[in-house]
This record gives sequence, C-alpha cells and structure tokens, in this order.
Amino acid sequence: LLLPVFQASKYSSLWPLPQKVQISEISFKLSGTSFKIVDAKESSAGSSCSILQSAYRRYYEYMFGSAKKQWGGKNRRADLTELHVWITSPDSECDAYPGVTSDESCESNYASCLETFSQLVYEDEYGAKNINSSKISDFPRFAHRGVLLDSSRHFLPIKVILANLETMAMNKINVFHWHIVDDQSFPYLSRTFPQLSQQGAYHPYTHVYTPADVKMVIEFARLRGIRVIPEFDTPGHTQSWGKGETDLLTPCFSGSKPSGTFGPVNPILNTTYDFMTQFFKEVSTVFPDTYVHLGGDEVDFTCWKSNPDIQKFMEQQQFGEDYSKLESFYIQRLLDIVSTTQKGYLIWQEVFDNGVKLKADTLIHVWKGNQQQYQNEMANVTASGYQTLLSTPWYLNRISYGQDWQGFYKADPQDFKGTDEQKKLVIGGEACLWGEYVDATNLTPRLWPRASAVAERLWSASNVTDIDDAFNRLSLHRCRMVERGIPAEPLFSSYCPHEYKGV
Amino acid sequence: LLLPVFQASKYSSLWPLPQKVQISEISFKLSGTSFKIVDAKESSAGSSCSILQSAYRRYYEYMFGSAKKQWGGKNRRADLTELHVWITSPDSECDAYPGVTSDESCESNYASCLETFSQLVYEDEYGAKNINSSKISDFPRFAHRGVLLDSSRHFLPIKVILANLETMAMNKINVFHWHIVDDQSFPYLSRTFPQLSQQGAYHPYTHVYTPADVKMVIEFARLRGIRVIPEFDTPGHTQSWGKGETDLLTPCFSGSKPSGTFGPVNPILNTTYDFMTQFFKEVSTVFPDTYVHLGGDEVDFTCWKSNPDIQKFMEQQQFGEDYSKLESFYIQRLLDIVSTTQKGYLIWQEVFDNGVKLKADTLIHVWKGNQQQYQNEMANVTASGYQTLLSTPWYLNRISYGQDWQGFYKADPQDFKGTDEQKKLVIGGEACLWGEYVDATNLTPRLWPRASAVAERLWSASNVTDIDDAFNRLSLHRCRMVERGIPAEPLFSSYCPHEYKGV
Repeated sequence: LLLPVFQASKYSSLWPLPQKVQISEISFKLSGTSFKIVDAKESSAGSSCSILQSAYRRYYEYMFGSAKKQWGGKNRRADLTELHVWITSPDSECDAYPGVTSDESCESNYASCLETFSQLVYEDEYGAKNINSSKISDFPRFAHRGVLLDSSRHFLPIKVILANLETMAMNKINVFHWHIVDDQSFPYLSRTFPQLSQQGAYHPYTHVYTPADVKMVIEFARLRGIRVIPEFDTPGHTQSWGKGETDLLTPCFSGSKPSGTFGPVNPILNTTYDFMTQFFKEVSTVFPDTYVHLGGDEVDFTCWKSNPDIQKFMEQQQFGEDYSKLESFYIQRLLDIVSTTQKGYLIWQEVFDNGVKLKADTLIHVWKGNQQQYQNEMANVTASGYQTLLSTPWYLNRISYGQDWQGFYKADPQDFKGTDEQKKLVIGGEACLWGEYVDATNLTPRLWPRASAVAERLWSASNVTDIDDAFNRLSLHRCRMVERGIPAEPLFSSYCPHEYKGV
Repeated sequence: LLLPVFQASKYSSLWPLPQKVQISEISFKLSGTSFKIVDAKESSAGSSCSILQSAYRRYYEYMFGSAKKQWGGKNRRADLTELHVWITSPDSECDAYPGVTSDESCESNYASCLETFSQLVYEDEYGAKNINSSKISDFPRFAHRGVLLDSSRHFLPIKVILANLETMAMNKINVFHWHIVDDQSFPYLSRTFPQLSQQGAYHPYTHVYTPADVKMVIEFARLRGIRVIPEFDTPGHTQSWGKGETDLLTPCFSGSKPSGTFGPVNPILNTTYDFMTQFFKEVSTVFPDTYVHLGGDEVDFTCWKSNPDIQKFMEQQQFGEDYSKLESFYIQRLLDIVSTTQKGYLIWQEVFDNGVKLKADTLIHVWKGNQQQYQNEMANVTASGYQTLLSTPWYLNRISYGQDWQGFYKADPQDFKGTDEQKKLVIGGEACLWGEYVDATNLTPRLWPRASAVAERLWSASNVTDIDDAFNRLSLHRCRMVERGIPAEPLFSSYCPHEYKGV
C-alpha cells in the first residue's frame, strides 16, 4: 500500500530551484484589485519595452486569474500593493532576440524573474493570495536549456506549439528546438521552394506552417525569453523533401535498374548544393536565432551503395568502400554553405564521430548510447575542444510505467571523466519528444512535468539532488501548471485544489 | 526508416468489426440539410422512446457536425434522405436500464446500430458525405465489454467521465466499471454516511460525486446502452473509509500498544456488518444495475496479525494461523448482506482462490498473473462452474513505448484449456485504467484507442485477428474519435484530416 507522502518543502513550490533562496515567515497579503507591477524609477527598461509590458499582464493573470473575481473588494486589507521591476539591461527597447550569450541573471531576465515571483505567491485557506518576504538570487547553471518538438511525424497545430512555449517559460526552458521536417512530412512552407510543402506536407493547406505561423511562433517565444532553433536535418531523414524537389534525393538501384525508391540527399550533384545554398539562405532570414540545427544523424548507406553513379564518384574521390567519407564530404560542403549565412550550427554527434572538420564554435548534440557511452562521448567531444549539449538520457518519447521523471532528474550533463576546462564546454541539454506516437491529443501531458525534471537539472545548482524535496516541489509546480490551463500529468496518486478543466 | 504503411481496409473504418459485413461499390450521397433519421412505421419504439430520439440527434451531429455548415445547400443532389430505424424490442418506452441479458443484436440495440451506420459514412474529396450500399448483420461475441476507471487515486471530474462514456459508446463498450473509492480517497457522497466523503475525499466539496452527479452519470450511460457497475472494494483498499467511520478499520498494534495506524475492515465486530448492511442497501438503490462489484483483492494480513483481539477471534474460530480464513469469514458475511439487496455480484479472483462459498451467479473477475497463470485461472474458475471475465492482459495503466495495442488485441479471453461448456462461462472482459498516474490531464488519450483494441476483441468474431487490417481500420477509427472531439492518441506517424482542436 502506497499512500501519497506529500509534505511541504521549505522551498515551497519553487521550480526550478533558484541558486539562493531565503523565504522568511513574514507573509504579506496581495489583492487582485490593487496589486500593480510597475517599472522601478531606476530601471533601464520601461513602458516602451514590449517584452516587459506583456510579461506584466501575463503574470498578473497567472497570479490573480482564478481569484480576482472572488477576492479583492476595495476595502480588503492588502499588505503588498506594488512590485517594482528594476532592469539593468542595456537594451531598453527590448526588441532584441534572446541568444546564447544573453544575461539570464535576475537583474536582466524579466520573464524568469517574474516567474519566480509568481511562484512565491500562494493561496491561503480563504483563497486569498499571499507572499512571504524572501531573498532570492538567481541565474541558470547552463545557458542552453531546450525542448525538442517534432512536427514531422505528426503535424502539431500552432496552438499546441504556443501552449508548450508558454509552459517552457514556466519551467525556464530557453530553447525551442523545432525539429520541423523529417522523412514523414515537410510542413515548413518555404517561400523559395513552395513545392516542398505542397508535395511533402501531410496536407498542403491544413498541415503546413506558413511564414506568418513561423513568425508568430518566434515572436511568442521571444516575449518569453525563448530562442527558436529550427532543425533541417540532412542528408538522411529527407524522404519528404524528395516529393517536391526532383533530383534532390539519390535514386536507389535494384541491380542495374532504378528501383523507384530514393535514399538520402544526393551528394554528388552540383544541383544539390545550389538548392541547399538557396534553401539555407531563406532559413537564415526566416529564423533570427544565430544558430541552426543541421541534423546529420542516422544516414543509411544502402541506397548510396546501390547507385552506380555514386559508386563511380566514390572511386574518383578515392573513398574506397567507406561511405562515411561520402557523408562527411556532403556535410563539409553543407557546413561551408551555412557558414556563409553567418549562422552558427548544431549537429548530431555522428558528424563529429565521422571526423568532419568543424568550425570551432560548432555545438555537438549528444543523443546516442547508454550512460557509459554518452559519458564517453561527452568526454571525447569536450577533449577535442568542442562545446556540447546532452539529450541521450532525456528522450521523453520513451515512456514506461511509474515515476520515470526521477531518472531524468538524476542524469547530469557534466557527469563524465574530464577536466574543469572540459566541463565548461557543456552548454546544457535538451529534452526530446520525438513525434512517432505523439500529436495534439497527447503531447502536452506527456511532456509535462517530465520535462520539468530536465529543466531543474539544467537550471539549478548541481547539488540540488534531493529527490524527495524535488517530488514535493514538483507536485505543487505541476498543480500550478494545471491551474494555468496546462494539462500536465500527475506524478502519483494525489490531487490539485484546482483540477484540469479540459477533457 | 519506417514510413507509415496505411492502406484502405475493405472494411473501411468499421470498428469494432461487425459479425457480417458486405459493402458494395454503390455509393449514395447524404446531405446534412435533408437527411433524416426516422422511426420506421413498423417499429415497436418511436417518438416516446427517449433513448432513440437522443441517439438520433447525437448521430446526426456526428455525421454532419463538421460538414453541415459548408455543405448542403438545398439544391444539392442527395441520393439518400432517410434512415428508417425499425426496432423490434418489447420495451417501447425505452425506460429500462441495459443489463447483462439485454438483446444487443442490431434489431434492438439502437445505439450500436446507429454507431455502425455512422461509421459507414465517409467524406469524399469535396467534403461531401457518402455511404455505400451495405448489408450488415451484427451482434457481440461477449455480453460484458467493460472499461474500469478509478476515481480514487485521482478524482475524475464528471466532464471527464461523461466524455469517456461517450467514447465507450463509439467502441460498443457496454459496461462502465466505476472503481469509485479506494485507499487514497472516498469521493462517493453517501446520503446515509456523509462523513465518509466529508472526511475521506481529497476535498469535501470540490472532489466528491454528489447523488445528482451519480444520477447524471448513470442516465448519460443508459442513453448510450452502457451499464454502470460500481465497485466498493472491501475489506482491503479501505484506508479512506476509516477517516469518516470510527471503528470500521482494524487498529494495528506495535507490540502491545495500538500504533495509531489502521488495517483492513475489522471483521470481528458486529458494528462492521451493521454498517455494511446500511451502506450496501444505499448502494443498491443508487445504482440500478443488477450487479455490484465487491472487490475483495489484495488483503494485507500484517495489521490483522498484530491485533490481539483479532488473534483471540482467530483462536475462537479455530482458524489457526490462516488469515485467509478470516478474510473469507468477512467476505462470506458481506456476500450474504449484499444478497439481501437482490443484487448479483462481481468479485476479484482472490475471493474464489480462497474458497469462499459463492452464489452460482457470481462473476469472478480475473486480473492476476502472467499469460499462463491467468489462463489456468480461467480454466479453474470455469471448471468450478462460475462465470468469469478477464482483465489481466488489459491493464491499460501499464504503458510502454510503441504500439502496445497489438498485445491487447491478441489476447483472447477464451484462449485457455477447457471444454465448450467452460468457454461459454466466459462473459467477457474489461480494460482497466488504474488511476495512480492518470487524471483529467491525461486519461482520455491514454485510454483511447488502446481500449478500442480490447473493444474489438470482445465484440467481433474470434477469427478477426488480422493485425494489419486492424491497424488500417483502427487508424481511421481513431481519427473519427478525434473528429468527434475525443483526444484519442495516434497509433503511429501519420495524420488525421481534422486534427484535434484542443491542446
């Protein structure tokens, strides 16, 4: 018999746990009718800062949304009536995009700072809102804290993406890795190559992301301090590209004849590189982030091997039978193309493993193997001087019975054999929710609060590892997400004061 | 690389597959503005039959709901304008409750018959609704096709229960097994013992089912041909009962002193049986079904063993050290009590395993063990002449990565060593979704379409086992559930023409 053991953490419902927290016992009452969030006089950002002003509205709604109607007659005593927001960032107009070098300490990161404040507000037994006098000093342990969503295996309606960006902000996740296309479908509507989605999307009108959609996603994310890094994975994972772009994929052969099926991108044609040049030029203007993810994983050589033109090329290049050399040949040229767009790039670990020459600022994304294998990979990548981020232990599409968040919580991206210098090259990690079994019907509860476990690992100090304390805080945090309208699933038997209202 | 292989079944999107199906190639157009479902002249049930009239409205909405606005100007050619419903049931007022002996053949089961008709309707490429001339003869293989939901580990808002009853009807599930209370909480508001939920619910006002709520669930189910069988599990699984009813549970001892904790129902006090008499008298009037589930599973003897009064009682009764005899002593008296309410009962297999004397019409619910063990149990139970139903292979709370519906689909409740007579004693089965990790946020997508696999196994002929054909039909069936507003999760990479609109 397991009854829920559910006690108050001394850190209340804070998630992820800030770097330094002191919560006193002195409590103040807040009233929804009189409470204001205002720019401090000394603040460098004010009424013209759209990020800030829209964050004020959002967090007012979070804090008083459910209570403002029942509570807050003007005669009610309120102890705390104003929150002064004092920003010391140089960008007073706040129209920049968040980046990997953004200052995320509490003095400049509006969104995450307000999130922390809102997490300190609690409802007493009469439904009134209270906050205890607290001192908090906060900054993230890692700069890159991401969630990967896959809109190719299943199309994800914009509404679903926005709701999850909203939830990422609640968890101080600052990177949305948008695995936007893959073998199964090509929902990205390219202005330069509209045939790609016209032919390659599940449906050319109802299952595509228009330029306006993409813009909306990016702006919605920006207002919440979230970077949008798109992934256009090549040369594998490109079946859907081939439908709208003739000659882009390698024709596979059955004996001496084309079989009618296609393999990875054809790496031996100049037209391929012309296409990639134009395509990634568009991508670099559509997506403002300074990084783009180029994929490069799981290239199947079977089709390349069957094709006589490819065989001839292999001979000319003196690659012998080593098709990973052909793969590297392609990737090398692709990286050169993308470099001309002034973007940095992330690539899956295979590209590093195959010895492709990479720019020094390339980010290697580790995703393969068991614990020992990924730790070795992290050691190797950082020993070679590259920055890296980890995803292997955080494949959230892999589900199992019970509290699997604990396993995600225990994994640490700096837990491998290496020098301090090497450890510093770890910029963070990403929780990945691949889309084979996930769409609008089940994505959100499958992602949250499981990704919250990853969020705390990437934000909080490395010694924040008390699993019982985490359980208690996370239970409250998940109820808070539910109260804010997000169907985050339960950790274990228990209840939320305000249960999910949808179905 | 696995791209979705998704072909049309010759049975289109029918799910569960009817007993006999002939779909011709002759198609008729239906128009939302002119189509009518009407009582056939010869029908025994008509305008005074509320079940029938509300089913007409429901299925009209399903068939034309999304299309009736775009489609159906009066000038459109419609080939089929009326569906005549000809009922041959003797209950012309249709105010009876469905029962285990209800005639479910297509001539009398309005709901499932209209469901089949609606499943034959499909959208052509212009969004118009069509149906092909078809001959269908249908009846279920098993009489008891159930889904268990657990409202104790997590409270399930009424809205969630109703949405899932709606979905059960779409899958021709005809039993809602309501595991309404358990250790964790007691949300059932008893008129006779209001303290039970006052003290034992997660919250006495927001997390309870009032008599009106229960009535609504039962009526909503009745209109869809679904029986509601409540489970009040004793003597174990009763921690929440103890909070509102002093002396009901056994005080556990630590050495010679009460430890302050409590065990199962106290089987040695007369007050216990007085309580049960009153309680089940109420239950028998609140729930109209002729069966009630009495639980009886997983009784932990540790607390009984620690209690000196129980030890004395064991001696007096000459039970030695065999506490299963004490358990049987309790259950025997409970069954006698429930028998006086004129209800039949279901019990979990332990009660049978412990050799309790059972009425001949008792249903034994098999839930334990691996495949070989549950098949042996089914053989033993039926060899003893009892009716049985199976749940072991259908614990849908147990999740794993991938297409686990295939495992549910392959299990067959008559697959054990036994005579034809024994096989006839198998009345069906139930898909169980226990609530430890499930609440309003994730229940519906976790249940559907996984429970649909069980639904077909229990409805269709035993030789309907083609897994590829099932995949193709089930993919369409799940998209139909999504179009009807139910967040049924995807089987694999693919898309629905009308994706889920919620988040």
